[in-house]
Amino acid sequence: MAQKPSIPKGTRDFSPEEMMRRTYIFDTIKSVFRLFGYAPLETPSMENLSTLLGKYGDEGDKLLFKILNSGDYGAKLSEEELRQASKISEKGLRYDLTVPFARYVVQHQNEIVFPFKRYQIQPVWRADRPQKGRYREFYQCDVDVIGSKSLLSEVELVDIVARVFSKLGIAVTLKMNNRKILYGIAESIGHADKMVDITVAIDKLDKIGLDNVKAELRERGIDDEAITKLQPILELSGTNSEKLSKLGDIIGESETGVKGIEEMRTIFDNVAALGIGITPELDLSLARGLNYYTGAIFEVKANDFAIGSISGGGRYDDLTGIFGMPGMSGVGISFGADRIYDVMLGLNLFPEELACSTKVLFVNLGAAEEQCSMQLVAKLRDRGVASEIYPEAAKMKKQMEYANRRGIPYVVIIGSNELERGVATIKDMRSGEQSEMTFEELVATL
Amino acid sequence: MAQKPSIPKGTRDFSPEEMMRRTYIFDTIKSVFRLFGYAPLETPSMENLSTLLGKYGDEGDKLLFKILNSGDYGAKLSEEELRQASKISEKGLRYDLTVPFARYVVQHQNEIVFPFKRYQIQPVWRADRPQKGRYREFYQCDVDVIGSKSLLSEVELVDIVARVFSKLGIAVTLKMNNRKILYGIAESIGHADKMVDITVAIDKLDKIGLDNVKAELRERGIDDEAITKLQPILELSGTNSEKLSKLGDIIGESETGVKGIEEMRTIFDNVAALGIGITPELDLSLARGLNYYTGAIFEVKANDFAIGSISGGGRYDDLTGIFGMPGMSGVGISFGADRIYDVMLGLNLFPEELACSTKVLFVNLGAAEEQCSMQLVAKLRDRGVASEIYPEAAKMKKQMEYANRRGIPYVVIIGSNELERGVATIKDMRSGEQSEMTFEELVATL
Repeated sequence: MAQKPSIPKGTRDFSPEEMMRRTYIFDTIKSVFRLFGYAPLETPSMENLSTLLGKYGDEGDKLLFKILNSGDYGAKLSEEELRQASKISEKGLRYDLTVPFARYVVQHQNEIVFPFKRYQIQPVWRADRPQKGRYREFYQCDVDVIGSKSLLSEVELVDIVARVFSKLGIAVTLKMNNRKILYGIAESIGHADKMVDITVAIDKLDKIGLDNVKAELRERGIDDEAITKLQPILELSGTNSEKLSKLGDIIGESETGVKGIEEMRTIFDNVAALGIGITPELDLSLARGLNYYTGAIFEVKANDFAIGSISGGGRYDDLTGIFGMPGMSGVGISFGADRIYDVMLGLNLFPEELACSTKVLFVNLGAAEEQCSMQLVAKLRDRGVASEIYPEAAKMKKQMEYANRRGIPYVVIIGSNELERGVATIKDMRSGEQSEMTFEELVATL
Repeated sequence: MAQKPSIPKGTRDFSPEEMMRRTYIFDTIKSVFRLFGYAPLETPSMENLSTLLGKYGDEGDKLLFKILNSGDYGAKLSEEELRQASKISEKGLRYDLTVPFARYVVQHQNEIVFPFKRYQIQPVWRADRPQKGRYREFYQCDVDVIGSKSLLSEVELVDIVARVFSKLGIAVTLKMNNRKILYGIAESIGHADKMVDITVAIDKLDKIGLDNVKAELRERGIDDEAITKLQPILELSGTNSEKLSKLGDIIGESETGVKGIEEMRTIFDNVAALGIGITPELDLSLARGLNYYTGAIFEVKANDFAIGSISGGGRYDDLTGIFGMPGMSGVGISFGADRIYDVMLGLNLFPEELACSTKVLFVNLGAAEEQCSMQLVAKLRDRGVASEIYPEAAKMKKQMEYANRRGIPYVVIIGSNELERGVATIKDMRSGEQSEMTFEELVATL
């Protein structure tokens, strides 16, 4: 077998170095979720196809990874049946965490204590064409509270975003919008049915300028009178509060619009009152998942690294309706671990000590010295210091190279000379400095 | 959709309560692995079928979950091709962590620093018939060092077993044996080719008694002279050291056998010298994975709970030969998370505070009180105390029930009366005791 083995395209191995960094991100995020009382949930990697199909649109159905029925699947089927995937496959790999979560809530509705605050960090699979930054297996990291319509949850999510990125050291901008405001705008200018068209056009304002946006609106069937009404909205500026006031003047006749304005005011006021370390920015061009979300929507971008949004989410009114349980309102956000990883790597934000969890390597110089080193290693481990002894008396150069390539910061050398005198030489691998100390000093120092 | 959705048979949802307990087990195990310098690794859930097939025997091949090629898989194939899984599926789900690890080592041999100490905690999938305690998706938890033949690694694994189960509070027995000793026994009695038969018979000694074992040996083609030679081995007793001495007298002419005895002596001596908190027990009937392991083998059982082995492993001489890279010796063990979970649940060993990570719930009594509570919650979170405020001013009973069912130990009540006087009522949900304190006292107390 001359050819090296490989892995399926679009999948990845995560080396120890990458794992340490990824774990750091996940652990940080989890610790914040816990602080807010969110509890972990895990669902199976495979779901019944009946659970998954029809939930992600035609395109999504095509991107599901289907699992062959086990056993002698082909044998008893007609050719026609064989050609229908449904006869040979009844299970698929999780495509996202939202549908399995909805399925879980419906299936376990009698055991769950509502409002249900859960987080879920698991891989999902999509048979997408692999390309730079797009994988066929990747982790999603979702946090949601369902069973409550309270806007305190939105405030809490803003706080979570602020704390997560502050802990990770990433400077971010949190943009917010509200689906009800978008509907209110469309309604106010007499085009309630064109909410998506209007939002898509507004979204291009920064890129193509006011005149081109107007042209696009016309193309999309918005009449001139409506465009004139829309103009002050396109030119909205000032603080969130100022924007909301002006918006109220313009769309005040839309009941839904007014509700959206009130919601955002409540959220912004509470965020300010609590002194949360981030000021969300009202951005009417934000249009995340319009068919799904029904209230506030969030999107987070890194200030100092161009990569698209690194977190996002919103309020939905009907998570579980697809499984026959209507009226379950909730709000949630998702953290994009792969992008956060790229931002942190690009901006050099990972703590230095992540490189290696081992603090000290004891060089192995033979049987007698080994015994002494092992005793000391055991003592250090008792004190919680991650330590290793090189497993065999290899050449010194090889052992030092091991420490070096692994990124182990300290190396301890106990040769026959040191052993006789009851001392150890400790070398700081970064500075190259060496010093001699007694075994007791060594244990205390490390 | 009247019918509740379900999940594929043999798979499981893990509720928050179960997740907290599972995470506790995994975190404990990981913390010990890290202490010994093992680094995390993750491989993709799907591997190419060429990587997986032929590695687990015919039975194993049948138990692989295969993934349908994405796209229009059936359309262009003949009926014959359709019936061959190979034409419609090229990927399968990970069956264990060992083969992907071997694949990783061969694929990344030029980047890896050897000896390579890695741990890997990920789910695996097997299309086994589901039954009590046997799932189609379950986690494995492997730790291995490869690229060194040093017995220090075996000693280290004994230490890891001792520390993991001591931390988890499970009293265990660690049995050890050595494949070389088993071969030496077979060789000494003139049946080198019957090692497996002899071991299987010895394994039954406890259950069926000496005479029946002899009868079974005869059935398996072992002659009476050989059985007579074997008798003292069957009756071996005493300490590990005594057993090894007697064994040396009996199988001293087998070079391999002597090597096995020496290996075990080195391991036992080092375990004793280091004061490791567990004394492995030499058990010649232990016969774990005989075709795979080549040296020491391990098996751990819980002393106070009948469930089979909860951890096991051994030394192998050729991990990566299947991928064309010979001579990679290593040693590793695997922790059975599901069984460890059952033992801990059965013996009530999970720490009480695992039930819920939230320490305190602030009851929500309306807009004004909510503002005050949210300020206090933010202060507590700043200090790392996991706290929640009930998101809406629901009935008191409902809010108390929420705290109760979630297992939140403290509830804080700030009503209009308390708000006026600047105090809070704190209720200990376990004892039912209530006391009043100022906001500063509250933050300091919690």
